[in-house]
Amino acid sequence: MTRYQHLACLLSDRIEQGLYRGGERLPSVRTLSIEHGVSISTVQQAYHLLEEKQLIVPQPRSGYFVATRKAAPPVPGITRPAQRPVEITQWESVLDLLSSRHNNDVLQLGSGMPDLTQPTLKPLWKIQSRMAQKQDLDLLNYDSLVGVSALREQVARLTIDSGCQLDADDIVVTTGCHEALSISIRAVCDAGDIIAVESPTFHGTMQTLRGFGIRAIEIPTDSVTGISLEALELAFEQWPIKAVVVVPNCNNPLGFIMPEARKRTLLALAQRFDAAIIEDDVYGELAWEYPRPITIKSLDMDGRVLLCSSFSKTLAPGLRVGWVAPGRYRDRVLHMKYISTGSTATQPQHAVAEFIRLGHYGPHIRRMRQVYQRNYETFNCWVRHYFPCGICVSRPQGSFLMWIELPEAFDAVRLNAELRALKIQVAVGSLFSASGKYRNCLRLNYGLPINEQTEQAIAQLGAAVEQAMLACSGEDAQAASLIE
Amino acid sequence: MTRYQHLACLLSDRIEQGLYRGGERLPSVRTLSIEHGVSISTVQQAYHLLEEKQLIVPQPRSGYFVATRKAAPPVPGITRPAQRPVEITQWESVLDLLSSRHNNDVLQLGSGMPDLTQPTLKPLWKIQSRMAQKQDLDLLNYDSLVGVSALREQVARLTIDSGCQLDADDIVVTTGCHEALSISIRAVCDAGDIIAVESPTFHGTMQTLRGFGIRAIEIPTDSVTGISLEALELAFEQWPIKAVVVVPNCNNPLGFIMPEARKRTLLALAQRFDAAIIEDDVYGELAWEYPRPITIKSLDMDGRVLLCSSFSKTLAPGLRVGWVAPGRYRDRVLHMKYISTGSTATQPQHAVAEFIRLGHYGPHIRRMRQVYQRNYETFNCWVRHYFPCGICVSRPQGSFLMWIELPEAFDAVRLNAELRALKIQVAVGSLFSASGKYRNCLRLNYGLPINEQTEQAIAQLGAAVEQAMLACSGEDAQAASLIE
Repeated sequence: MTRYQHLACLLSDRIEQGLYRGGERLPSVRTLSIEHGVSISTVQQAYHLLEEKQLIVPQPRSGYFVATRKAAPPVPGITRPAQRPVEITQWESVLDLLSSRHNNDVLQLGSGMPDLTQPTLKPLWKIQSRMAQKQDLDLLNYDSLVGVSALREQVARLTIDSGCQLDADDIVVTTGCHEALSISIRAVCDAGDIIAVESPTFHGTMQTLRGFGIRAIEIPTDSVTGISLEALELAFEQWPIKAVVVVPNCNNPLGFIMPEARKRTLLALAQRFDAAIIEDDVYGELAWEYPRPITIKSLDMDGRVLLCSSFSKTLAPGLRVGWVAPGRYRDRVLHMKYISTGSTATQPQHAVAEFIRLGHYGPHIRRMRQVYQRNYETFNCWVRHYFPCGICVSRPQGSFLMWIELPEAFDAVRLNAELRALKIQVAVGSLFSASGKYRNCLRLNYGLPINEQTEQAIAQLGAAVEQAMLACSGEDAQAASLIE
Repeated sequence: MTRYQHLACLLSDRIEQGLYRGGERLPSVRTLSIEHGVSISTVQQAYHLLEEKQLIVPQPRSGYFVATRKAAPPVPGITRPAQRPVEITQWESVLDLLSSRHNNDVLQLGSGMPDLTQPTLKPLWKIQSRMAQKQDLDLLNYDSLVGVSALREQVARLTIDSGCQLDADDIVVTTGCHEALSISIRAVCDAGDIIAVESPTFHGTMQTLRGFGIRAIEIPTDSVTGISLEALELAFEQWPIKAVVVVPNCNNPLGFIMPEARKRTLLALAQRFDAAIIEDDVYGELAWEYPRPITIKSLDMDGRVLLCSSFSKTLAPGLRVGWVAPGRYRDRVLHMKYISTGSTATQPQHAVAEFIRLGHYGPHIRRMRQVYQRNYETFNCWVRHYFPCGICVSRPQGSFLMWIELPEAFDAVRLNAELRALKIQVAVGSLFSASGKYRNCLRLNYGLPINEQTEQAIAQLGAAVEQAMLACSGEDAQAASLIE
């Protein structure tokens, strides 16, 4: 992809996102040349390309304007999972995904790893080194079951941004968001119970349900507005649903932020049917809009929302520092935490508390939001450029995950196996379904540092997808001709 | 307690332990004076005291000899729990014990905390500081599900001492022994199943069973030889027992090491009834005998033993680095680990691996064994001196836990409440029973650094016990007179 193509792609993306609206004047050639550090002629070439695509129109002596009619790229439609509780499968595929996580030769487009290379994270090392030098024995000892109080205080303070009014005693520290979700699910459900989930849903949640013998009812979910409240209401009427697990902010894998009104309705539904809400906000801090979106927990008046999060996506996953605000389920959550790990590693908790206390968290988060948004724009350009037509792409509103829907007959599992030779790995969609749906979907991580090799990988991936799609339609044609 | 009393107590203890046998010559006055850094006359006074107690006899011009007949102090007899599966209670008491863990004003005689003050642990700080300075990004990232390979290699090497032949791939790292036990239990049992446990048994195991809806059948256990194999066989014949959880080496709370022949029989029983054995070896490295006792795992030929351990008691609990060698249950254990915490904190794993690799582990463990054994001798003297007659005391063969059995009518829960005013906390026996038995028992931790205040606390504890015992017998007498 040449520079001008890249710039054109980036601008078309901004137009589609509504940053430049129909009829609005675009920045001057000079301005863009300075902003992107490219030559005047590169900007001119990019504008010509967009003009050819009829996305922009030139007006003599006034510059370029956004064309009033522009084609929006398709986003995935609402999903249609089976509307009944199912047992969860797919463990082998999850294990497969996890096993390749530490192969440095493979480009980990399927992982949920954040970018750890930014300079705003550096103070964390200094804090850890200072802590080791101080030799405070408390750091080697068992932490209390609820977690280090200095950390709980900082977490409570951070949640103000999402509309919550919590204090340190409302927080229980956990070993990552994984443990937060796991103990929350166990706190509200027993084996045999039914939990409603978005579809697609994070594979960790799915496997937790499987591990505890809990059945999932997958609710149709829209890639822009989130879980279908109508379908959820119907499910509530038909089944004894104990809880709903949702990722309403920067959803994994779809990337949406649920509109506030829908969050309110979801909570009202849970109240009406007396169900708990397990709210996974692990990506919520990475929303691009400012101020960040509110949590359902912030609307909760009767303690039925268990808000789960961690510093795995915002700071570093290797710390394994997460937390839950368990509301009225605190006692059960503490019991479950006790039998799960007893207490969380002490030193990482103090390191995170100190990182926040010293004011490093705000600047780091602001930077990461920018980095991920910029990466998204680049990735989005690449995907449009290198992938064949006929695909749908999610439009994440934060975080670093992108969902791509290919034609129904496409087999991403087979594709992923073929990608091994290219040393590329993606997350196949079927991981995100209880019943193996979404085999025609992929989740890509655009959060890791990108360079020419990344572009090359996306180009290879696009070519592999195109080939697989051709093979698909070939098989279809063959099948059709056989039938004839 | 004066110096000579202390020395006398220590010597009488050695005699009772068989270190000096009947008829054997005791060290000369001069030798003891040098060994213990006390004056010649202190040793002479101590020997006179022992002579008075008829434990030793003087022989002219030859020194002192151990009397051939000596009174053994009573150890607790075999326990008699209910011989049927029961639901587990006692969570509130566990929570109570955990809550006071971080109150520095309280002497934590009830905790399971090791001594973290020894100089042989210091290299751990240096390793952590060096790691932070190196800024290796891998340390911030997710670890693999099975754990850091450098650590698994070191763990496999360490298990050779307990007779095992494992390699790195046989080990799964966990977040403390707590997670190792929890995921092992879940890997072999579902809700409603029955597990056989020693009685008394570690409260963490009990609460895990409770949390997963598993029933416990408590098997009578001898404070010297361990779980009653006869009772276990009977239980196997009567109930569909899925697994047995045992702490065969330096048992918590009784302190015994199960004789090797009994370990073999236990394994044979498990094979006959096709049950798994979950072997908690978390204190095994702290056995006083050398070489350390073997694990049941080392005898296991068909992979039915899940060996669980951690570095919480040997190095530092705040690291939360444990492990399990899950044998044939590896896949299930990995699934349970994934849904429990996903992966263990990365940095502490590397720190432990490096601590072992650099050769610091051996010297540290040897030192800790000596420290705990010396502490035990001192504590034992104090307990005999300050506690009333009519009690039984366990004779631990390693680690740092002592079990005291008081008369049947004694209420340790009430005592513990009274001890709050004295800022002393003990672990009440009922925590170690599924059904609230052992209310007349206490577990004391003698592993923490001891000083004059510790002795004072034991004196206060002894006085409180005496008073409570008097009150008990008073109530009994009153009750008896009322009946008359």
